[in-house]
Amino acid sequence: MSEVIATYLLHDAKGNPEHKAEGVALGLTVGTWTDMPALQQEQLRKHKGRVVSVEALEESEKANLYFGKRMGRALIKIAYPALNFSNDLPAILTTVFGKLSLDGEIKLLDLELKDELRKAFPGPRFGIEGIRSLVDVNNRPLVMSIFKGVLGRDLQFLENQLKEQALGGVDVVKDDEILFDNPLTPFEERIKLSRKLLTSVFEETGHRTLYAVNLSGRTFELIDKAKRAADAGADALLFNVHTYGLDVLQGLREHQDIKLPIMAHPAFSGGLTASAIYGVSNSLLLGKLVRYAGADFSLFPSPYGNVAIPRAEALAIGENLTVPENEWKTSFPVPSAGIHPGMVPKLAADFGIESVINAGGGIHGHPDGARGGGKAFRQAVDAVLEGQDLERYAKDHSELRKALELWGGVPAGLK
Amino acid sequence: MSEVIATYLLHDAKGNPEHKAEGVALGLTVGTWTDMPALQQEQLRKHKGRVVSVEALEESEKANLYFGKRMGRALIKIAYPALNFSNDLPAILTTVFGKLSLDGEIKLLDLELKDELRKAFPGPRFGIEGIRSLVDVNNRPLVMSIFKGVLGRDLQFLENQLKEQALGGVDVVKDDEILFDNPLTPFEERIKLSRKLLTSVFEETGHRTLYAVNLSGRTFELIDKAKRAADAGADALLFNVHTYGLDVLQGLREHQDIKLPIMAHPAFSGGLTASAIYGVSNSLLLGKLVRYAGADFSLFPSPYGNVAIPRAEALAIGENLTVPENEWKTSFPVPSAGIHPGMVPKLAADFGIESVINAGGGIHGHPDGARGGGKAFRQAVDAVLEGQDLERYAKDHSELRKALELWGGVPAGLK
Repeated sequence: MSEVIATYLLHDAKGNPEHKAEGVALGLTVGTWTDMPALQQEQLRKHKGRVVSVEALEESEKANLYFGKRMGRALIKIAYPALNFSNDLPAILTTVFGKLSLDGEIKLLDLELKDELRKAFPGPRFGIEGIRSLVDVNNRPLVMSIFKGVLGRDLQFLENQLKEQALGGVDVVKDDEILFDNPLTPFEERIKLSRKLLTSVFEETGHRTLYAVNLSGRTFELIDKAKRAADAGADALLFNVHTYGLDVLQGLREHQDIKLPIMAHPAFSGGLTASAIYGVSNSLLLGKLVRYAGADFSLFPSPYGNVAIPRAEALAIGENLTVPENEWKTSFPVPSAGIHPGMVPKLAADFGIESVINAGGGIHGHPDGARGGGKAFRQAVDAVLEGQDLERYAKDHSELRKALELWGGVPAGLK
Repeated sequence: MSEVIATYLLHDAKGNPEHKAEGVALGLTVGTWTDMPALQQEQLRKHKGRVVSVEALEESEKANLYFGKRMGRALIKIAYPALNFSNDLPAILTTVFGKLSLDGEIKLLDLELKDELRKAFPGPRFGIEGIRSLVDVNNRPLVMSIFKGVLGRDLQFLENQLKEQALGGVDVVKDDEILFDNPLTPFEERIKLSRKLLTSVFEETGHRTLYAVNLSGRTFELIDKAKRAADAGADALLFNVHTYGLDVLQGLREHQDIKLPIMAHPAFSGGLTASAIYGVSNSLLLGKLVRYAGADFSLFPSPYGNVAIPRAEALAIGENLTVPENEWKTSFPVPSAGIHPGMVPKLAADFGIESVINAGGGIHGHPDGARGGGKAFRQAVDAVLEGQDLERYAKDHSELRKALELWGGVPAGLK
């Protein structure tokens, strides 16, 4: 039967997670059960939620200290019949974590969509393979970079930054997610400028760079705006999906007049994911759900920098983005923040070839500028692919050498 | 100058919140400052974020225990120039809590919109006064109730429930938020049925009841669907805004062909608000933001029931919904969950006349059914307005008496 199975982490002082699970399975579906006349039970059976499993976990000393009492911990899995909701993410999220998000110490860890329900979600239009075709890069992680310090700057400033990044061999350049519509660097002007510049860099060097423009503004104007972007020759869209809604991402992905790669930015997602006790897991939100809704790239905090998430969570995001699924193409994992060239061996080991290495300061802060930064990253990638030691490879590659001198090699704790 | 001032609660082991605040003010606007040439500083000054204040707070013993180290606590306020973003909530949320939501132990407590920026947000179309005109009820809290156990049921079942609630004197009846598009009780059929039934109840009794239908489905189809609802004679829309996005609510509010009261449901909001350390405050999300975006009603967990939030937070939501503002009408606070007639004195004391008393089980579980439940609530409201003791009033009012016998009077802890 088509259904969604939700996995929750429950902290509960009452010590009876089975009872809680049964209450959720009924309370969020048919309401009551045992008091219901047999005839009604027969009518409503196919709507009834079902406790799939309840697994007691060891107590968390931290949590006990925080709450000042012993909190039982359990993983509970509950199946909700798809018959109960329409096939869209707002309805699913309301069903599995609407009222429940308000009901004590509970975190939504995972959703498994079963059978027909899976077909309601498009997944990425391009996926990793499609993006690789666009940039004509196979068998290595892509290298991506970010504009820096663009607020209050003009088109000339952006053009210079873009040119340096492209000449450095960067595969994808994304807008700063805090660059919105503004008179200095208007949306369509940015697209036209990048198209012209990146075409000329391609003609000069044979290297193709994509530019992801920030699709922002009012929700009900996004479709028209994205069409204008496509008409103006945009390569890809950057989208702050978590300040809009996952279904908005899906709507953009599905529209037949847009057909552009979409890069999901994690802005605002920390509000939902940061707590170990409440909210939604990173692997579900930034892994499964943005993939199902249609993002070709998902950015998320790397486990390495200042803005970091636990390594297991980052790996689980990457896994959910890339695990083979019949219904959905894969999405590029883009672990971000705190990345410099010395981290490339670690990134490759953690996230594999099918990932994007993304840097801001690690590109622009290079002694030779963004061009040198891009080259240093590409050299680091080459070294890793050739199985060579980064420090040794750097002897013959000056940009990588300067990067390692400035930021250090593979950080000791990450080796 | 038009700007938004964000207030954050920071937990930080480094013990230098001033440094952190300065880093945020620069990092989320112009990037760097002191290293910048004077000419560039001149150009970018109007884009630069500004630390408004940093207030050290006492440490939280709970937090120190949880993190296993001493965590400094501080309230920091940062002003972001409106010049940096477009005038929409996704851009504002990305600016003030995009990357920052991923950056350690930080919670967004409040936003203050200044000057011109305020005019970008519509606030409620009807507001409390407008809703009062629609139901012709002044000088008392409204009484609202919820359908119960509707999954898998047919139109006849809904009609019976609606009739009983309306005959009980309930002012507003809302759909269950987990009732989506389904073949048994289709959206437009629910609207037509309720219109007919509630008109007939009005003709019979002179009491007007509004029905809020759940507006659900795909985001980019909501406008058309809401128009169809308006054409079919809908009274009001229930909307699970937090599974869609605040800007979607605003788009519905502003559309000139819809013009229906909107009731914002808190489903899924707990994922953002439940932690004391991460996420967004209840008073901001369920108070200010849903009001600015245009909700006429905001439902939120009451401080009394099983699904409860701290009393101070519930009161702060109510305050933000009803404080007079030049630009925005007020929104009805609807503290929900765990409400029975014995709580009416407490609700009236906490939330005042300008609020909605909302019950599910406290209506349907009445010994005389939903009709009796509605009457019991209306009697409790009358008693409070007349300054009478609930128990004494119940002597001459059988529905209230039965309710108090079943659920008890004003709970001791709440008196």
